[in-house]
Order: sequence, then C-alpha cells, then structure tokens
Amino acid sequence: MARRPDEPLRGWMGVAGGWTLVGRGNETVANTQQSADGGLCETVHVALAERSYDIFIGAGQLATTAERMRALGTVSHAVVIADEAVAGYARQVQAACQSTMRADLLTVPSGEESKSIARVDQLWQDLLRLGADRKTCLVAVGGGVVGDLVGFVAATFTRGLRFCQIPTTLLSQVDSSVGGKTGVNLPQAKNMVGAFWQPSVVVIDTDTLHSLPEREYLSGMAEVIKYGMILDAELFERLERSVEALRRRDPSVLRSVIARCCELKAQVVAADERETTGLRAVLNYGHTFGHALEAVSGYGAMLHGEAVSIGMVCASRLAESLGRIDAELTQRQVRLLEAVGLPTRLPDLPHEELWRAMQHDKKVEHGRLRFVLPARMGHVELVPDIDASQVMAVLQASH
Amino acid sequence: MARRPDEPLRGWMGVAGGWTLVGRGNETVANTQQSADGGLCETVHVALAERSYDIFIGAGQLATTAERMRALGTVSHAVVIADEAVAGYARQVQAACQSTMRADLLTVPSGEESKSIARVDQLWQDLLRLGADRKTCLVAVGGGVVGDLVGFVAATFTRGLRFCQIPTTLLSQVDSSVGGKTGVNLPQAKNMVGAFWQPSVVVIDTDTLHSLPEREYLSGMAEVIKYGMILDAELFERLERSVEALRRRDPSVLRSVIARCCELKAQVVAADERETTGLRAVLNYGHTFGHALEAVSGYGAMLHGEAVSIGMVCASRLAESLGRIDAELTQRQVRLLEAVGLPTRLPDLPHEELWRAMQHDKKVEHGRLRFVLPARMGHVELVPDIDASQVMAVLQASH
Repeated sequence: MARRPDEPLRGWMGVAGGWTLVGRGNETVANTQQSADGGLCETVHVALAERSYDIFIGAGQLATTAERMRALGTVSHAVVIADEAVAGYARQVQAACQSTMRADLLTVPSGEESKSIARVDQLWQDLLRLGADRKTCLVAVGGGVVGDLVGFVAATFTRGLRFCQIPTTLLSQVDSSVGGKTGVNLPQAKNMVGAFWQPSVVVIDTDTLHSLPEREYLSGMAEVIKYGMILDAELFERLERSVEALRRRDPSVLRSVIARCCELKAQVVAADERETTGLRAVLNYGHTFGHALEAVSGYGAMLHGEAVSIGMVCASRLAESLGRIDAELTQRQVRLLEAVGLPTRLPDLPHEELWRAMQHDKKVEHGRLRFVLPARMGHVELVPDIDASQVMAVLQASH
Repeated sequence: MARRPDEPLRGWMGVAGGWTLVGRGNETVANTQQSADGGLCETVHVALAERSYDIFIGAGQLATTAERMRALGTVSHAVVIADEAVAGYARQVQAACQSTMRADLLTVPSGEESKSIARVDQLWQDLLRLGADRKTCLVAVGGGVVGDLVGFVAATFTRGLRFCQIPTTLLSQVDSSVGGKTGVNLPQAKNMVGAFWQPSVVVIDTDTLHSLPEREYLSGMAEVIKYGMILDAELFERLERSVEALRRRDPSVLRSVIARCCELKAQVVAADERETTGLRAVLNYGHTFGHALEAVSGYGAMLHGEAVSIGMVCASRLAESLGRIDAELTQRQVRLLEAVGLPTRLPDLPHEELWRAMQHDKKVEHGRLRFVLPARMGHVELVPDIDASQVMAVLQASH
C-alpha cells in the first residue's frame, strides 16, 4: 500500500452538501507486516475511542484467529457461528482456537432467512447451553448475513459479548467488516431490529475468496470500485491498471485493495459512527437506483453489487444531465465495471415502478429525492431536490 | 437538597479493595427549581458524555412529560408503553403529549413474565405498525419490569430509539432510572439478554407513590437506606430523622431523598458505566444474602427490598464477625429498617440451601465468596475469600 507520509491528518471537510477526504487520516493507517509464516498481512486500525479495533488482511489469516483473540485478553471461550456454506473454514478456525481455549461451533443456514428473530432466539439459547459468559468471544464466519446476525447476538447476550468477525465474501470484507451495524429482519421489514456494536477484531483471509462463486465475487468488486469513485481517485486508477489481476483474484492485489477500502470506510465511520452527521451517506453512491433495481426485479434475482454497478452508472448519468460532470467520468466507470465483468445496463423493468421503489428509500423528502452524485473522480456530493422527470430521463438513457 | 459548594469534585478513590466517594461530583449535581405551577422540582444531571441526561423529580411531574420530550428536539411521535396496573398514569402522559405530537399507548401485563422475548417481538411489531422511526420517543410508564423491557426495545428498534423513563415505584425511581441496564429474561435465566442503553430523560412524579401498595413502597425504601449505608452517612442520618415523614410518604421529603439517591447512583454509574471497573459492585450491598433469600423462599414470596433489608443486616453481622465494624453499626441499620417497617430477621429457611444459592451469585471465586461489607457509615468495601463457616455463623445469629 502506497504511503503518503507527507500528507498529515486533515480529516474531513464539508463541501457544499458533500464531503471530501482531505489528506490521509492517521487514525486509520494501514500497515504491512511480514507474518511468521512469511505471508504478508496488512493491518487497518479502526479508531472509535474505547471501541477501536484492528482489521488483519492477508492470505492464510484464518490460522491466526486464536492468536488475535488471545491478544484481546481474558478470552477463554470461543463460540464460532458460521454460514453452513463455509463450515470448512469455520472448522479451521475452531481447530486453531482449540489449541488454547474451549471452542464450540454452531452453523446457520445460508441466506437472508437466517436474519430472523427466531434464529437470534435459538442462538441465545445455544449460548446459554454452552455456558457463554463475559470471557466468551463469538466468532462470525461467513458473509454479511452471518456478520449482522452474530453481531446482534453479541450486542445483546448478557448486555454485550465481544465478537470477532471473519468475513468470507469480498462484499462483507470491504463493507460490513467496518461500521458496527448489526441487525436482523422483521417479517415485514428488513434490518428493522439491531444495534450498533463494534467487533473486537476482524480477520480477513483472502484465501477464502478462491471458493467464492464468480457472481458473488464481482458483486463485492462493485463496492470496491465505488470506494474509488466516492473517496479515492488513486484507488480507482489502481483498479484500472489491475483488471487482469483482479479477475484472477491475485492475493497480493486483493490484500492491498481490500485494506484500502477498509481504511476508507473506517475514516467515514470514525467521523460518523452512528449515522448522525449524514457523512455516512456518501457510502450510498449508486444505492438509490440500486435498491430500486433489487426491489423491482425481486429480491435475489439480482445480486446487491450487480444492482449497485448499474446504479452507479445511472447516478453518474444523472450528474451529467444536471451538468455537474462530463460524460467521460461516466464512461470511465462503465469501462472499468465492464472490464471486471459487471453489468452496467438497466434490465427491462417498468420505469414507473423503479421510481416508486426509490420513493421508499430513506432519502426521500416531499416527493423529491436526494442522490449521492459524483462531482469529480474520488469526490461525491449529496444533491437534494431531484424530481421524477430528471430520473425518468436517466432511466430512458440507461438501457 | 443541601449544597456543599466548599467540597470540590475529587471523584472516586479506590481504597484497598473498596471505594469511597470523596467530595461531591460536580458532574451530577441536584438542582431545585420552582416549576410553573408552583411545585418544586429537583433535577439530577447524569453525566455520561454524549449519553448524558436529566432526571426531573417532584410532585405533578407527569404533566411535564411532553415539555421534557420536546426539549430533546426532533421528537414528533411518542409511544407510551405502560404496565397495565398504571394505565391511568399512562393515559395522563399520552394526553399531555397529544397536545403537541402524535402519541400512541400500549400496555403490557404486570409482572416479571412481561420481560420475555415474545413480548419484545410483539412490541417491535407494534412499533412497525405505528410507523415508529428515529423521530419517535418511547415512554416507559411503570416499575423496573417495564423500564427494562421498554429500554431493550428502544435499544434495538432501528438500531436505537430514544426513550423517556417514568418510573412509578419507589424502587425503580431510585434504582433502575439510573444505570442504563435494559434487558429481558430467557426461560432458563433472568436478564440474560439486554443492552446498556441510556434514557434521554427521566421524569419521577412523587404523586405516583400514593397508590403504591405498602409492601412495594417499603421494598423501595430498603434501597434508599442502602444508599445511605454505602455512600452517604448524612443521608442515613436524614432518614433516621425523617421516619415519620417517610412512613406517611411526605412529598417534599421523598423528592429530596429520591434526588439524593439518583445523584449517588449517577456518580457510581458515571465512573463505571458498563460494569468494567467493579465500582458498581458497591451497589450490591446486601444483595448476595438477599438474592439467596429470594431464590430459596421462591421468587415472588419475598419482595426484592425485603430480601435486601435482611441481607444488609446479615452482611453487617458478617463484617462484625470479621472484626471490621462494631455491633452498633449493625444496630443502627436494624433500628432504621424496623422503624420504617422493613423485616430484619432471617425467615426459617435451610442454611445449606442459602449457602448453595449464594454460590450461584456472580461474585463467587473458587468456592469462596466476595461480599460487599460496611467499613463505617457511608462506606463499604469488597471483601474476598469468605468461606462457608463464616457465612453459616452469621445465618445462625440472624433469626
């Protein structure tokens, strides 16, 4: 990872409805180290006062989990809770822990259905049966669903257990491993119940990406590209130069790219931990269009990152139509997204329904929408007061 | 409330396994004000950084709830959740709120059974149906059960709603209105699921105590006397001088005594918000014996404060038998507890069972117990390494 020691911490600067990252935050600095077995490991420190923690990123990191947990102090019991699809990785983690502490393993079915109150209740009962107490550390192994679920169980069992997150999908590695959002769904509404609860440590093993299905891998890549667009022109350029390495899932490129994404998200979260200042909204670039696409095409038909990929192109076209950017900025995104293998064209869906779905988004205000729009590479702004006709024109142009 | 401006903030001082309150903390200072209708209101500020809040204490305070909530800013919807036994007070609160905001009312059955996951799930669904969002403030009206339940629902719905606590029992006014502990029971274990979640404001209306059954009122009084013993000799002396006023529930004496208890607990909590330093343990004076009494006599047979009253006398006898205090200190407690109408003698229960029940207490360490014991009036210490024979001797002497 490129260091820029000449740029001191200047933090975040509000700019006319948007934010720009000025300099590198020294509270979140990635640090590359040679690990004992010769592998390289990057560390990102997430600075949240007494809730601060480290993210360790590299190949072969699963085996270090026990050591990372011991470093927390007073952990004498691990309960590994895994997506059953990655039970193999979970057993590796359990075995690594068992050398120095009691370690249990529980699995939950894959898929969004596991983010339910019934599943949470089951896990609470399991923890009681396993004698979990304040010296227990939960270990979440899987994607965003398991992270959200286990995080919420950790936040609430005996008023708070520590938890270690081991995200095994690219999307969860660059997204939900930073931010502390945990939660589950009610039958009528997603993510309605939850807590802000930070992990005590995050271990990202890039080896887990080798077994990830191609569409899921690319879905995560859409979020990676998003970080370049919204916060870091240099990252975007690096991705443009690394298309072939990214396509073959090169471990050292992935290690460094994932570390940079975590670092960028960590800076946003450190400045707006509980979503009170609005700064975290920059992370939603492409998401207003994207959520509508997911909803109208039927949840599950389109992966989140696929919808965000198309959503970013739509948002960029909207910025163009408002005269805020040149067509070339949109084209650079389209070229990179298509080069890695992501969709950029709107599927055949009724525009009226997409518009209605956008109205349900949190960013609605009196029938007009707020969008996160690009201002230039590496910089976005929150633009209010967008109406239906402006959005419809973009939808027309995006097939 | 007596002011002692000559004593600056010196905070807490650790003393050989115990703690002593040195001076008055200026972060939690009670402040008496005349309210618009001529009634007197005391305010205790609970200093917890961005989680700080005020407690308002006085007669006729229920009617001020809407005004207290408006002062929080951006509250446009109240959901009052009440113990059905005090639905009348809850309707007064709802009516007061309705003048300036949308206000809904939900009730839950009285009793510990309402602290269940099923009840929490029901309330989450109710909040969704009522369109609760981040501009909604929950209002808990009732005793400790409702406070714990509603606090947990507030902590978890959409990752955190504000809540206003209106404790209507003396016990909840001096105990659970400060501390931020929320939670519910699993079928096999009490308070196993929960969160630390601070209220945004607490309104204590001493008028609600007039309808409280005598045993419940006295149960709260045991906790009041405990605060004097553990932290404030002057408060203890004031209680000794005010027995008649306390027995007839004199509003102005209650206002000032409740305010002082809240202030004392606020100082402990401010120094140990999440129970990490052990300081909060001082609040457990009388509770190791007390919990055992509650468990062995069958939950519900003895009220919590009745068990704590006997438990404090037992703990004091234990301190005597260890040569830590004179018999006179125990006698002062017995005289005050009996004067207000509380039990001080151990009921006829098998001593072996009481000892076994104490082993389940959190303060057990290798078969020997730690007790919070008095050192002198207004000061307690955490004493480790107490064994069965020492406890048995105290049980023998306490009938």
